[in-house]
Amino acid sequence: MTEQTTGVTAASGFRAAATTAGIKPSGKPDLALVVNEGPEYTAAAVFTRNKVFASPVKYTRAHNDGTFRAVILNSGNANACNGAQGDRDAEATAAAVGEALGVPASEVAVCSTGLIGDTLPMDKLLAGVATVTTAVKEPSAGSREAGLAAATAIMTTDTVVKQAVYHGDGWTLGGMGKGVGMMAPSLATMLVVLTTDAHVDDPAPYLNSAAEVTFDCIDIDGSTSTNDTVILMANGASGVTPSEGEFRDAVHQVCLDLARQLQGDAEGVTKRVTVTVTGTATDGDAKTAARVLGRDNLFKCAMFGSDPNWGRTLAAVGMAPVPMDAEKISVSFNGHPVCVDATGAPGARDVDLSGPDIDVHVDLGTGGPGHATVWTTDLSHEYVHINSAYSS
Amino acid sequence: MTEQTTGVTAASGFRAAATTAGIKPSGKPDLALVVNEGPEYTAAAVFTRNKVFASPVKYTRAHNDGTFRAVILNSGNANACNGAQGDRDAEATAAAVGEALGVPASEVAVCSTGLIGDTLPMDKLLAGVATVTTAVKEPSAGSREAGLAAATAIMTTDTVVKQAVYHGDGWTLGGMGKGVGMMAPSLATMLVVLTTDAHVDDPAPYLNSAAEVTFDCIDIDGSTSTNDTVILMANGASGVTPSEGEFRDAVHQVCLDLARQLQGDAEGVTKRVTVTVTGTATDGDAKTAARVLGRDNLFKCAMFGSDPNWGRTLAAVGMAPVPMDAEKISVSFNGHPVCVDATGAPGARDVDLSGPDIDVHVDLGTGGPGHATVWTTDLSHEYVHINSAYSS
Repeated sequence: MTEQTTGVTAASGFRAAATTAGIKPSGKPDLALVVNEGPEYTAAAVFTRNKVFASPVKYTRAHNDGTFRAVILNSGNANACNGAQGDRDAEATAAAVGEALGVPASEVAVCSTGLIGDTLPMDKLLAGVATVTTAVKEPSAGSREAGLAAATAIMTTDTVVKQAVYHGDGWTLGGMGKGVGMMAPSLATMLVVLTTDAHVDDPAPYLNSAAEVTFDCIDIDGSTSTNDTVILMANGASGVTPSEGEFRDAVHQVCLDLARQLQGDAEGVTKRVTVTVTGTATDGDAKTAARVLGRDNLFKCAMFGSDPNWGRTLAAVGMAPVPMDAEKISVSFNGHPVCVDATGAPGARDVDLSGPDIDVHVDLGTGGPGHATVWTTDLSHEYVHINSAYSS
Repeated sequence: MTEQTTGVTAASGFRAAATTAGIKPSGKPDLALVVNEGPEYTAAAVFTRNKVFASPVKYTRAHNDGTFRAVILNSGNANACNGAQGDRDAEATAAAVGEALGVPASEVAVCSTGLIGDTLPMDKLLAGVATVTTAVKEPSAGSREAGLAAATAIMTTDTVVKQAVYHGDGWTLGGMGKGVGMMAPSLATMLVVLTTDAHVDDPAPYLNSAAEVTFDCIDIDGSTSTNDTVILMANGASGVTPSEGEFRDAVHQVCLDLARQLQGDAEGVTKRVTVTVTGTATDGDAKTAARVLGRDNLFKCAMFGSDPNWGRTLAAVGMAPVPMDAEKISVSFNGHPVCVDATGAPGARDVDLSGPDIDVHVDLGTGGPGHATVWTTDLSHEYVHINSAYSS
């Protein structure tokens, strides 16, 4: 019986294990395994939209046909841009896991995160696979601790473990995630594994729609990883078939929880900035404009400085390739109007942005019903420090 | 007789003056005037493509019909996002200059740069206009020093004066510019004034084509100003009509010189990074991809850290919305191949990027003839410092 707790082992019939394979120079844990014990093995996955994608993405996408029984994840090396060798290494990893677990290699998903462009140390990785595939058969592999260990082993520059859970009536959906930078238009640099003991015929539509309004709305630095992967596995072990509405809400809630944890732990973040755009013809236009603002370095530096610089906000959204009424743009910070009809509002320079959360609302003045929210962060010294000093 | 030197007074028949009107809290010079004494008054101008544009841009664009006799430029206040009051202030500025010089207000171009969203202190500005319109009639207003004073008075966070010159056979083209941040897709946050004593029937095509391959290729931070303006005035005072080819080359050369000065003085720059993309179907595709890379914060942080991180280069260009052959992408840094066919090259991690200039060449592998270059910078602590501490 799985404990009622958070993470990938919260749902019944899921096990996890982790180890230090030696992929990371730091000597920290770097290999995790999540196994679905059934009785069902339905799964769905979404991947990076980057045209340059890593070998594990290539492998897992090729086998994303509705069934995964296990996910093997390594940190410390992205296995990206390694050519045919990288493809062979991803295949060999899945094959080793499949053989040890007695499942087809095609039902093993592979995820990697870390430095791009170095080939995997396969001797170390395969020794680690032997360790985790053995450990996952121990009774303790269904525990909260095992889930936590897996969530820890996928961290790179993450400073905190990221786990979430939804408890339904007799069933559970849990998950873990990692991601700190390279967070952009479709997914962040993220690996996420969700597990549920609910019975779900086809989890793909639920995962797709939830990802679109959660992970896909994080835009930390306009950069998109070669390795982004989100996988949901369902085993029906609870015997419960939630209503479509409840399952949709549950997936959305857990994805949202993890997405906000990713935003909060983004590299160098000192402010979580929520950008909402309204007053466009369509939601798509609003999302485009919100992304343009959320990526603008001058705007992000102003947020770092707690500076209610609405002029930069206007200058940034003015470049969004969407229709707007430039003379009717309005902006508010933390609910205080700072710009009305493209002109400064009284007291605009005195709005207090010193707290850790800043809400920015921009109305583009067309009168249309479009609406979208994007979560970004400020641009801090620490972001520059981490990303200039860390070859990642 | 104008001295053979650089700047807006290098060409015969152009005068300049500057003063401290008191617009800048720092008490530094903040108002400049450039006057064309004729005998001809042909002119051309290009402006920001931002949908949110400042009142001086609105005014000057409305009167951009081939003739300008003077340009009045203030720093310290952008006169942007000030609604109808801003429009009236720009008009009043042109009117005051026109009246003092005895020329139509419609032949006076107005440029502003500085903080967005504060109305101009018109009492101070108009007193300053009285000063510079008087000073510009003095004999010294044609001197090198007068041009230098004008170039100094348009600086904001610029750390160096930016001037350039081309000496033809009996004629001259000179210019000044300012710009340090908010440098992006079409023009930088820049004000540029070019003056020539050549006879040119219509300078617009020359200015447009030169701007497209110079100022329009600077992309420091993906941000585009509300105030960008480049103006070229020609007076025929030399009596020389250069060939089309020579005049095209001269405008290109002076714009290029100023553009590289803008890049070199960009906020917080420690590295000048030249991004060249080839192997696309079209030049436009190459420019799009070069911009995507040039704006990628992770790439820019790696440049700051002198880190030959070609993996981030691939991850960034992989998101460019242009056709590419992702398995045939090649990258070189400073002429050293670091990635061939999307796989690391031997010695890639050891390439020395410690110097102040870094050349990045990315071939997107389609075999097409597309080619483009974009000039960007690294992303440094100083950029964050300047833009979080300075309300601009």
